[in-house]
Amino acid sequence: MTFLDELFEFLKVDTTSAKGKGEEGAKFLVDFMKERGIEAELIRHKAVNPYVLGEINVKAKKTLLIYNHYDVQPAEPLEKWNTDPFKPVEKDGKIYARGVADDKGTLMARLQAVLQLLKEGKLKVNVKFVYEGVEEIGSPFIEDFLQDYKERLKADYVLWEGAGRGADNSPEIVLGVKGLLYVEIRARMEKDLHSMYAPIARNPAWELIYFLTSLRSEDGKVRIKGFYDKVKRLNEEEVKYLRGSKEEVEKALGQRVPEGFMRKLVEEPTCNVAGIYAGYTGEGSKTVIPSYAFAKLDFRLVPDQDPEEVLEELKKILPSNLELKVWGKVRPYRTSINSEIARALISSAKEAYGIDPIVMPNSPGTGPMEAFARILNNNQIADGVGVEYYGSNIHSFNEHIYKDDYFKAMEWMKKLVMELQR
Amino acid sequence: MTFLDELFEFLKVDTTSAKGKGEEGAKFLVDFMKERGIEAELIRHKAVNPYVLGEINVKAKKTLLIYNHYDVQPAEPLEKWNTDPFKPVEKDGKIYARGVADDKGTLMARLQAVLQLLKEGKLKVNVKFVYEGVEEIGSPFIEDFLQDYKERLKADYVLWEGAGRGADNSPEIVLGVKGLLYVEIRARMEKDLHSMYAPIARNPAWELIYFLTSLRSEDGKVRIKGFYDKVKRLNEEEVKYLRGSKEEVEKALGQRVPEGFMRKLVEEPTCNVAGIYAGYTGEGSKTVIPSYAFAKLDFRLVPDQDPEEVLEELKKILPSNLELKVWGKVRPYRTSINSEIARALISSAKEAYGIDPIVMPNSPGTGPMEAFARILNNNQIADGVGVEYYGSNIHSFNEHIYKDDYFKAMEWMKKLVMELQR
Repeated sequence: MTFLDELFEFLKVDTTSAKGKGEEGAKFLVDFMKERGIEAELIRHKAVNPYVLGEINVKAKKTLLIYNHYDVQPAEPLEKWNTDPFKPVEKDGKIYARGVADDKGTLMARLQAVLQLLKEGKLKVNVKFVYEGVEEIGSPFIEDFLQDYKERLKADYVLWEGAGRGADNSPEIVLGVKGLLYVEIRARMEKDLHSMYAPIARNPAWELIYFLTSLRSEDGKVRIKGFYDKVKRLNEEEVKYLRGSKEEVEKALGQRVPEGFMRKLVEEPTCNVAGIYAGYTGEGSKTVIPSYAFAKLDFRLVPDQDPEEVLEELKKILPSNLELKVWGKVRPYRTSINSEIARALISSAKEAYGIDPIVMPNSPGTGPMEAFARILNNNQIADGVGVEYYGSNIHSFNEHIYKDDYFKAMEWMKKLVMELQR
Repeated sequence: MTFLDELFEFLKVDTTSAKGKGEEGAKFLVDFMKERGIEAELIRHKAVNPYVLGEINVKAKKTLLIYNHYDVQPAEPLEKWNTDPFKPVEKDGKIYARGVADDKGTLMARLQAVLQLLKEGKLKVNVKFVYEGVEEIGSPFIEDFLQDYKERLKADYVLWEGAGRGADNSPEIVLGVKGLLYVEIRARMEKDLHSMYAPIARNPAWELIYFLTSLRSEDGKVRIKGFYDKVKRLNEEEVKYLRGSKEEVEKALGQRVPEGFMRKLVEEPTCNVAGIYAGYTGEGSKTVIPSYAFAKLDFRLVPDQDPEEVLEELKKILPSNLELKVWGKVRPYRTSINSEIARALISSAKEAYGIDPIVMPNSPGTGPMEAFARILNNNQIADGVGVEYYGSNIHSFNEHIYKDDYFKAMEWMKKLVMELQR
């Protein structure tokens, strides 16, 4: 089997953690690694999907821990895909499949690169692998897992889940993550009512909507008490390394973006309506007062906001007619741009791509980086060596990567390892 | 077959007009009437379901036109029903089925009463029947139909779709209807996006939500220009006949209602969110910016508001990022409490039930009464002789009536006819 065949086999496995799927993907990885001489183990812990731990010990002084996740976001709405999300397809130099960009392609490219170095006798740094199966549902129990396995996860450097080509197509290095608070707000009454009762009855949909607008002003500012107090604005050096092509980003998003878009992406916390539902949503009309309404909200948080504190303030202003369910909490994190791992990533990216990388102080996205830093007592956590680009449609339909970027990431990985073991 | 068996056969026919179903119900009625000696005809017109016309001509001077609708609201959510909505069940003196209260039970009780009078040789007024199949989707093309068939529909009195037991369990007479404007507001962008783009991307769900709150204040006041200008407040006589048991209404709605609830039900126009949808609504979390959001809104209008005028003002304030789709428009109407039909309804109700009826100047619900009045040039349109009560769960799950009320309505119908032909 070729590198691509092997990737395709992995992509075929449905690992949608929001639906409780993933175990099959974990087993695939354990078998894959064992067959190629890597010690690997499936770890059942508290989360719905198991972890996978792997290790190559070459008795070197330094150890690199590679973190990826094998789970994916739900592929819905399926009717928007041109192909089956779990039947990978190569077309016009691109590979289409759910998870190919986030995060299975990167996981596999790195693993293949390390296997090559091992085969060629060039691996002079110990490598550990940790693959998570519940990243897309907010990494529940990750802290417990890190606590329980912190000895086995000990490392000098941690390579994060993946950053590929940035907004101007240069390789991208990311030194942190945003945090997340994911909640569901619900309003109920006993039963659906004919809407002729609207002059005298509650309407849970209206109640929900008014609460939502009380949380956020129309220009995006979040109205929760103290929300912006701990936001750490970027320093001059961090801003200097930030760049991106407005044209590329606009093309990828299918819309205009504001001036200063890169800085906003890094530095602005948000309150996003990810889903809302109430009442009759079929074709035509139904005159009903819905008995049940809910909204799913994600708050993206920046260093040094704390999801616990935001949640506490949110609970304080929650009216008694509404319920709140927490689906996920992750703290934000940033590694120094002067760390060894950051420097190694920058120079290996230059070598592999022949151009200066972009350096993002933190990703606009989220991952459990802060828990790794705190529990493993490691402040050298950074990201790069990914397969995706700005138009990859991650978390959306027709997710894809460029085939060439898969091989480019393998090259970058090899050079990064060589750099770290220098 | 007994009266109940015959009703059950009718209830088994799924006539959900919002799903394009109904034709089978129309055929059932034509066959049913013909088999019992009533001239009847299925009329295919412009709407998705046909009309049914029937006539008993006893060469009397006066003619009564009976209007009912055979279509029903969607039964969803099905999981909330204790029984199959299209498999009628008798239990604890009640009959459960979609449409038994609105409007199939009333249709059938009246038809059976007229058939009995005919059989007994007591029918001294001509009776015409008109059954509609698209009332629950806002009676599209009703005006065209009335125009095209106005000669055949000519009558001295029109009996509306049905009013059963009012809020204090007395028989109820209703002299009008509210109007309706049903619209869907939609917001779109090209594709779903990962919510990490929230600092720089549009969110159609937020855009929709802010527009909704701009339409209505939290206390229920509609903020559309001129919305209240034509609202005709009740006069003293009309208020006098209004009554209802607060306890009964609260029990039926499963919640507390405000003081003056009967007057509010009659006199207050509303803007109701009947449905809203965007993004991920499954179990757990998905961090997405939804590409599509929509809300279904019904505006209940009172005499003399005009749905066309409300729609025009709504269009004027619709932002360019939103789309509007109109699903239905019906004008409100009120008949005089001093008309012959109102007086006949009041005295026959007293005879049948032995108690004073409640008289509502207009229903809190909607029907195409205004079109009948205008096109048929008839100002004697009123409602009563229905099978339902306040707890019937119309438009909701577990719709039902008391079995006794089915037979009580037959009795009321016979006495009404005797009164009108006096």
